[in-house]
Amino acid sequence: MNLVLLEAEDLVAPQHARLAGRRLAHVREVHRAGMGDELSVGLLGGRMGRGRVVRLDEEALELALDLDQDPPPKLPLTLVIAVPRPKVLNRVVAAAASLGARRIVLLNAWKVEKAYWASPRMQPANLRQQMILGLEQAKDTVLPELCLARLFRPFVEDELPRLLSGGTGLFGHPGTGGPVPPALALPVTLALGPEGGWIDAEVQSLGQAGLLPLDLGPRILRTETALGALVGRLFLA
Amino acid sequence: MNLVLLEAEDLVAPQHARLAGRRLAHVREVHRAGMGDELSVGLLGGRMGRGRVVRLDEEALELALDLDQDPPPKLPLTLVIAVPRPKVLNRVVAAAASLGARRIVLLNAWKVEKAYWASPRMQPANLRQQMILGLEQAKDTVLPELCLARLFRPFVEDELPRLLSGGTGLFGHPGTGGPVPPALALPVTLALGPEGGWIDAEVQSLGQAGLLPLDLGPRILRTETALGALVGRLFLA
Repeated sequence: MNLVLLEAEDLVAPQHARLAGRRLAHVREVHRAGMGDELSVGLLGGRMGRGRVVRLDEEALELALDLDQDPPPKLPLTLVIAVPRPKVLNRVVAAAASLGARRIVLLNAWKVEKAYWASPRMQPANLRQQMILGLEQAKDTVLPELCLARLFRPFVEDELPRLLSGGTGLFGHPGTGGPVPPALALPVTLALGPEGGWIDAEVQSLGQAGLLPLDLGPRILRTETALGALVGRLFLA
Repeated sequence: MNLVLLEAEDLVAPQHARLAGRRLAHVREVHRAGMGDELSVGLLGGRMGRGRVVRLDEEALELALDLDQDPPPKLPLTLVIAVPRPKVLNRVVAAAASLGARRIVLLNAWKVEKAYWASPRMQPANLRQQMILGLEQAKDTVLPELCLARLFRPFVEDELPRLLSGGTGLFGHPGTGGPVPPALALPVTLALGPEGGWIDAEVQSLGQAGLLPLDLGPRILRTETALGALVGRLFLA
């Protein structure tokens, strides 16, 4: 937790926050903060800055706030991710948020097992919590827009072309795609397939929607590793 | 497991392998293979190709081998990673192997807790197993060279300059580093700090060893996410 992320209900006065629970425990046990220490703090959806510890005990952490900075800009990036197995879902969503994606779409695909959609981890409250953890890690305050697309064809045929909005669409397709195009019109929409990849009909649909197949070379990377590698390739200075 | 990785002792004849345990279970339960099916197979440290299922039951998987391809080339990359907490160590090592690093150094640093070194996960057998999982994921057969550097200064002062060997050395240093240099002499040596970052004396030592500080922008990424992003930035086509 590189940033203590406050929600509106944590504010007991305009420049004063009171926290308990997970964040209190983290500040006591990991940060090992003391009275008067200054912590990096941000207000969800708002500005960030410093919070001076004015109370810290078993019941509450209270912070005097000085929020004078804007959060880092989002990347002009929509990530469309075939729903991964529950075990890795949390990490993928947190990583996507920490990398600065503006929008995250969790998409169905032929090789996404139906049980994945029924996982408690797919509940909106959990997905939001994972994005919060990603923001706390990255020092950002702005939640990505999150969409759940349970039906592949309507999403890809009707919504995806609109999301592209003049930018560049890419989808991971090991073995038969090409390299990253030399000039990228922004925004970028990047689709990552399930374990086992897209089936032929999906490849065809993604192509018809205007996405270009991308080949990262001979190595098959896990979703979370491929995600970092592609964002690094496309956006890092 | 995109590649069934065989070890020398799995070979019961030059073109014939017999497996049990984890790989047998995976092929039965995840691949759901049947007699006559062909699987992607590689021999640890050797070639890769296809294995035709000639026996598959509760006791053993037997494969008739046709190994006619070389593994993908390694990246000209040494990763020097401050030992992460045990919970993430496995994923970081597997990801580093899957990305194709030629060498992985696990390094001590001021903010690496001593308990991390005592974790059972730091045992060579576990670290090797995580690299194997990374190779199985990526479809590679060649283990990275793994080094454990329990003493920061002797490693950074004596060994690191030799590892650079005319190439480019970089270390992650959020907040005060620069962007990736425009032209990179190969090989690349890339050092990633612990949670909480390098301390000043470490930054100075890394600089004196010939590494350049690198700033990935305002976002602080987890080791495993930063790893993917940097390798993508430096090596993806």
